[in-house]
Amino acid sequence: MSISLSRQAALTLTQQLAERLAERIHTRLLPAGARLPSVRECARQQGVSPYTVVAAYDLLQAQGLVEARPQRGFFVRDFVQNPLPAQEKKAQAAIKVDSTQEAPQGLAPGSRINASMLIRGMFVESVAGKPQPGAGVLPAEWLDAGFLVAAMRKVTSGQALRESLVRYGEPMGDSSLREALARRLQRIGIAAVPSQIITTMGATQALDIVSRALLQPGDPVMVEEPGWAVEYARLAAMGMRVLPVPRGPEGPDMAVMQRYCETMAPKLYVSVSVLHNPTGYSLSAASAHEVLQMAQRYGFYVVEDDSYCHIAPDHAPRVTVLDRLQRSIYISGFAKVLVPNWRLGYLAAPPDLVERLLDTKLLSTLSTPTPMEQALALCMEQGQLRRHAERLRQHLAKARTRSVALAQAAGCRFVAEPAGMFGWVDTGVDTEVLTQHLLDEGYMIAPGAMFHASRRSSTCMRINFATTQDAAFWRVFERVVARMRMQA
Amino acid sequence: MSISLSRQAALTLTQQLAERLAERIHTRLLPAGARLPSVRECARQQGVSPYTVVAAYDLLQAQGLVEARPQRGFFVRDFVQNPLPAQEKKAQAAIKVDSTQEAPQGLAPGSRINASMLIRGMFVESVAGKPQPGAGVLPAEWLDAGFLVAAMRKVTSGQALRESLVRYGEPMGDSSLREALARRLQRIGIAAVPSQIITTMGATQALDIVSRALLQPGDPVMVEEPGWAVEYARLAAMGMRVLPVPRGPEGPDMAVMQRYCETMAPKLYVSVSVLHNPTGYSLSAASAHEVLQMAQRYGFYVVEDDSYCHIAPDHAPRVTVLDRLQRSIYISGFAKVLVPNWRLGYLAAPPDLVERLLDTKLLSTLSTPTPMEQALALCMEQGQLRRHAERLRQHLAKARTRSVALAQAAGCRFVAEPAGMFGWVDTGVDTEVLTQHLLDEGYMIAPGAMFHASRRSSTCMRINFATTQDAAFWRVFERVVARMRMQA
Repeated sequence: MSISLSRQAALTLTQQLAERLAERIHTRLLPAGARLPSVRECARQQGVSPYTVVAAYDLLQAQGLVEARPQRGFFVRDFVQNPLPAQEKKAQAAIKVDSTQEAPQGLAPGSRINASMLIRGMFVESVAGKPQPGAGVLPAEWLDAGFLVAAMRKVTSGQALRESLVRYGEPMGDSSLREALARRLQRIGIAAVPSQIITTMGATQALDIVSRALLQPGDPVMVEEPGWAVEYARLAAMGMRVLPVPRGPEGPDMAVMQRYCETMAPKLYVSVSVLHNPTGYSLSAASAHEVLQMAQRYGFYVVEDDSYCHIAPDHAPRVTVLDRLQRSIYISGFAKVLVPNWRLGYLAAPPDLVERLLDTKLLSTLSTPTPMEQALALCMEQGQLRRHAERLRQHLAKARTRSVALAQAAGCRFVAEPAGMFGWVDTGVDTEVLTQHLLDEGYMIAPGAMFHASRRSSTCMRINFATTQDAAFWRVFERVVARMRMQA
Repeated sequence: MSISLSRQAALTLTQQLAERLAERIHTRLLPAGARLPSVRECARQQGVSPYTVVAAYDLLQAQGLVEARPQRGFFVRDFVQNPLPAQEKKAQAAIKVDSTQEAPQGLAPGSRINASMLIRGMFVESVAGKPQPGAGVLPAEWLDAGFLVAAMRKVTSGQALRESLVRYGEPMGDSSLREALARRLQRIGIAAVPSQIITTMGATQALDIVSRALLQPGDPVMVEEPGWAVEYARLAAMGMRVLPVPRGPEGPDMAVMQRYCETMAPKLYVSVSVLHNPTGYSLSAASAHEVLQMAQRYGFYVVEDDSYCHIAPDHAPRVTVLDRLQRSIYISGFAKVLVPNWRLGYLAAPPDLVERLLDTKLLSTLSTPTPMEQALALCMEQGQLRRHAERLRQHLAKARTRSVALAQAAGCRFVAEPAGMFGWVDTGVDTEVLTQHLLDEGYMIAPGAMFHASRRSSTCMRINFATTQDAAFWRVFERVVARMRMQA
């Protein structure tokens, strides 16, 4: 295989490589079933970095042209025998960029960042030892939960506990954990009793359960913009009408919300009130009050996603504090501060919604694994989690100072006052194009399009303060941005 | 509190007690917020068994009149301030028994077995040491998975593994487990590669993911009847049109299936082919072939739920074996033979559906916990699971012989040739009424209505061979049935 790639072309190396390979597949030079060269081999042949090759193969996979077989590599798919079902093609078309003039470099069809690519990006916390600026999690070494592993060993030893393993577990979740969670909620001002709390597979399942239980397809749902694309994707996948409400430093744009309420009768408002993703904004008490008044007047529920609560101050204003869980549902999890993969999350709901939400949990995963819940309860009771969160906040404060200075020195402007885990910065260039260029250099960033319901390209990106402390990244960033400006 | 209950009345003790309490709540003799007497206290006052009290309180809870607060007891709900939302009321009305003449004893409104009550019944494997004939699981002592706990300790020790805990894990599921599963599938004749396998939170989540990914609300779906009510409930909750196909010893009734295909264009056929629940029937190769021909002709997918595979012969005919996962999806889990609460399950799908199914998993729970998956992989690789399943099959064979003899001696007729874990027996009396009477005696059975899409009452019940070996249960059963016959 020999493909000449140009570093000066309008297309990134990744795109060039993917397009050449796609052409060969379409013209049958690479026939169905053929194995693509290994990443290393291809990188050597083309004189590009392995990252470029990986990204190109990913594009081809997203286009349905090749498939990955673990431990074996990438193979050309038999796309004549196995064409994409019409439904899937339509879905792919629907998520394509809708303002083509904003992405003039022309991402190859199908290469648009889609929901699952977004989420998968969260799984990439470092590549070849390089911290990833777009990561959705804190660095592994910060999260090292030795105490949780120890607690886990404790709860999986002993005859009594071994016996508990052979049962389905309590449908609502382990009772010791729900009691510990109720105490925690009381500490932040939310008067929830354990019978209002249902444990879930991470905050993700909690959001999913609430949407499934309270909404019918076609229902209008208000979300925040910018906001977390996975939530948009979930609602879209369920056939809901997604209504983006601009999020400001104090809270949602009430005028926009009012208009939606008057014209669309939304059923739900989903909000990350405290340390909002991606801006870091936290709700003001006055705004919380206003949102609740509107919820009451127009009859919608507020879903408060408090995923970042462990790195936020305890006294932060929350909708569910003011409302005492009457028209609001509280959701949180531990993926940001502890073992993301253990999927520990929960919701607290008005008593009259609990049965309906529990039914939905039962139909979705039946129950949640008890040992992890018991281990977490133990860590909460012994104060280990609180101390661990304190340490994280200290680490994060230091990292934030350093990252903010580096970002500003590299020409970034903070759209929102830096707070919490993420920064929302304006780079001055199209961050979707920037994403492709930085991928060639081995860095994955989180472009603005990830946080807009319309997926429109923007000059903003989200940075993880913990993973942007490295001056090396910012040097590459400056170089790439300068090149983009010159080419523009 | 003093309520005179009559053992001779047409209503069961449970129903009488629940009705009297409901009356007192409605007339405000028991005001909102009041605590009901403890189960023990109430049982003593009324001279009934604690089971009767628990069942009565459960009925009141199902009716929304009381709420349970863990460790504190049952409290009267403020049902004026917190009325059930209209939507929920409608749902409750929709699942009420539709053939009232078949339940002349008149179950109290709202006391109908509903989806979540059904599922919760599965969680009850023994009450006060009594094995429960309706249990959906094998006895705890059979499942004692010491080797799995040991494997778990192995995978949660060591620095490398501790590090793996702080990441989200592979979206498709742990690769060592997917490889072990691919080898297992190959052993039973299904040629699946690891990249076709997605791990899930039990077979439940696998079924849920497939329905969500492949169906739109309103889509017609064929299910088996009798069959597993939780699957009916899931599909109904998602707004699907449930089309019951009678299941016979060899497979589905092809004439009925043909009619559905010609008139309704169903999108899916969901089937427990091998050791069907509740009958124990296993699909014949000829029937598998016929089903696939129809799937091809009419363009629907077959979802083969092989939840009982570990207690079935390896060489049993399966749709997915004949089809090589072209128009079929294989689903299985480990809840029947190992730690039900760990929620270990998976699906294997045609390559062109994998991405869509994975997206749905990501939106639903993001990932699945790695440690349990790695522990299971270890047990599979070391042959422990295979040996464990062999032991279970031997236990079960013995239990089946004994339970069949006892059931027949008690006047039951086996509708299907006894096989596997469950027996489908005709008792000659309405098993929904029987359920209430046996609950008063501390036994929970699985009445026929649980296995019919229409929820209609029937004279059949499902017995768990492992938990009906006790002559004491059958003596009570005979006495209650005789009394019912006398009253009829």
